[in-house]
Amino acid sequence: MLPAATGLHIGIEVAGTLAFALSGIVEAARKKLDAVGVCVVAGVAAFGGGTLRDVLLDRRPLFWIEQSWYVWSVLLLCMAAMWLMRAKHFRPTQRSMQWPDALGLGLFAATGTQIALGLHMPALISVLMGVITATFGGVLRDIVCNEIPTAFHDHHPYAVCAFAGGWVVVLLQWLGFDPDWVVALGAATATLLRLAALHFEWRLPTWKLDGDD
Amino acid sequence: MLPAATGLHIGIEVAGTLAFALSGIVEAARKKLDAVGVCVVAGVAAFGGGTLRDVLLDRRPLFWIEQSWYVWSVLLLCMAAMWLMRAKHFRPTQRSMQWPDALGLGLFAATGTQIALGLHMPALISVLMGVITATFGGVLRDIVCNEIPTAFHDHHPYAVCAFAGGWVVVLLQWLGFDPDWVVALGAATATLLRLAALHFEWRLPTWKLDGDD
Amino acid sequence: MLPAATGLHIGIEVAGTLAFALSGIVEAARKKLDAVGVCVVAGVAAFGGGTLRDVLLDRRPLFWIEQSWYVWSVLLLCMAAMWLMRAKHFRPTQRSMQWPDALGLGLFAATGTQIALGLHMPALISVLMGVITATFGGVLRDIVCNEIPTAFHDHHPYAVCAFAGGWVVVLLQWLGFDPDWVVALGAATATLLRLAALHFEWRLPTWKLDGDD
Repeated sequence: MLPAATGLHIGIEVAGTLAFALSGIVEAARKKLDAVGVCVVAGVAAFGGGTLRDVLLDRRPLFWIEQSWYVWSVLLLCMAAMWLMRAKHFRPTQRSMQWPDALGLGLFAATGTQIALGLHMPALISVLMGVITATFGGVLRDIVCNEIPTAFHDHHPYAVCAFAGGWVVVLLQWLGFDPDWVVALGAATATLLRLAALHFEWRLPTWKLDGDD
Repeated sequence: MLPAATGLHIGIEVAGTLAFALSGIVEAARKKLDAVGVCVVAGVAAFGGGTLRDVLLDRRPLFWIEQSWYVWSVLLLCMAAMWLMRAKHFRPTQRSMQWPDALGLGLFAATGTQIALGLHMPALISVLMGVITATFGGVLRDIVCNEIPTAFHDHHPYAVCAFAGGWVVVLLQWLGFDPDWVVALGAATATLLRLAALHFEWRLPTWKLDGDD
Repeated sequence: MLPAATGLHIGIEVAGTLAFALSGIVEAARKKLDAVGVCVVAGVAAFGGGTLRDVLLDRRPLFWIEQSWYVWSVLLLCMAAMWLMRAKHFRPTQRSMQWPDALGLGLFAATGTQIALGLHMPALISVLMGVITATFGGVLRDIVCNEIPTAFHDHHPYAVCAFAGGWVVVLLQWLGFDPDWVVALGAATATLLRLAALHFEWRLPTWKLDGDD
């Protein structure tokens, strides 16, 4: 039931992984971590979400353990980014990270949901697994850097976009679409929603307990 | 050896889960997280302890994956709580949370210990699994919210009550009591100890390294 | 392929575990945690790295679940340390912790790498597992205590030493050395590198994004 890993799938995974690794490098540099910290935070951001999904679903071996060139790629990206940051050729801004981050969000939400559906998980659980794949790399990155995860308090829709993309995957799979199209359309939904949310400055509701602090 | 999930067991689990979810909602609202953050922190508080126990013991599928109505219940509770908080009908205080929290503590400590005993774990490990089930939802909730876990520094007995309840379960199981009674008495021990600790303001010893900061 | 657990291996594991437990006790006391917090942070520091390694590699039962005297030893160490701290006979300083910590780092890096090699993991993954075993106890300890992990931002080589020790294990195993010698030489490499790094005040490069904060 699980679609064979086609070239499209692998390309998607690699693009998402590197996008998230880059977000980790930027946050680590901003927190003035050392070279080891940069590599670890990049690795946590890139592999954290998929690893948590696989641990929860008991899928082994983990994707980055089975295909260790993933780890090499992230290490090389870290080296290159650190060298460029030293040489001042590369100054990643919060803004410049939004595009690769939105892409990674959509890609991981779609593939995570599809993997869980392939294991015959119920629809809600599959969508949650997509959301976990897409967001927990960033959540763990922020926890390691001792921050409240931005996914939970920046008030712009983020996990919600992954949630919507996951339901698109569930729906299209149920309608019998081709697996490649399912992933592509689910990922596009989540990514475009995220970019729209940033562009139109949509905001999530917040709560405040009065007289509490 | 593992008792069949009776109606009593399921009722207990649901009560404990919702009590902890509520504690997550309150903390997330206090930290001014957005709607997604409220749902995630509630989910982490409700399912974190049991999930960590199951990952450590390698029990799959996870209880909330197998029975996805757990996740729906927590989502509905979050929706209802957020709606009520908006409408100002619901102002949870630290104090009002103590009763459901003490109940959840006792219930999860007892069922967690019993599950580990059913897998033929040694007594100390089983009790630890009960303590992990009962306390790590709250610990992970506090870590996500970027706080030192209250379980470790509020100086009122909390995990210690779960520890005591766990040993009651071990003792009664060893004496051959009926599984339902074992859980009920273990849970009552932990819950009552916790309520007594709050009422009489028992304090745990602390340490301070002189001249250190 | 996996070497039988000889007396040397067990002695090494116990020494490393107690060294890391002690580092947890000291940090918990410094953060003014209560008695439960001291025990939990000590347990997280002592067992966290090996547990994460085993969860990632899907090795069960976990070592401290299979051999529960590990847990008893750490509990006893906590009791003794708390009693001594109360009586002011024991004032652990940051400096006094450096030796046992460096020893634990080397020992866990070497045994972690060897365990992963024994499961036929690729070289890079095995070394990473050694680094995770050696450093994530401390990382989780710092996360629980709400600090940025010192392993990532104190700018002195720490994980890098474990990394080097892991590659020594890979090389010697590949050359066909006796497993005991492999562990001993790998551990010695990491420990001595760490002590040299502290003594000569080697520093890791850092990055700073200009105009960013």
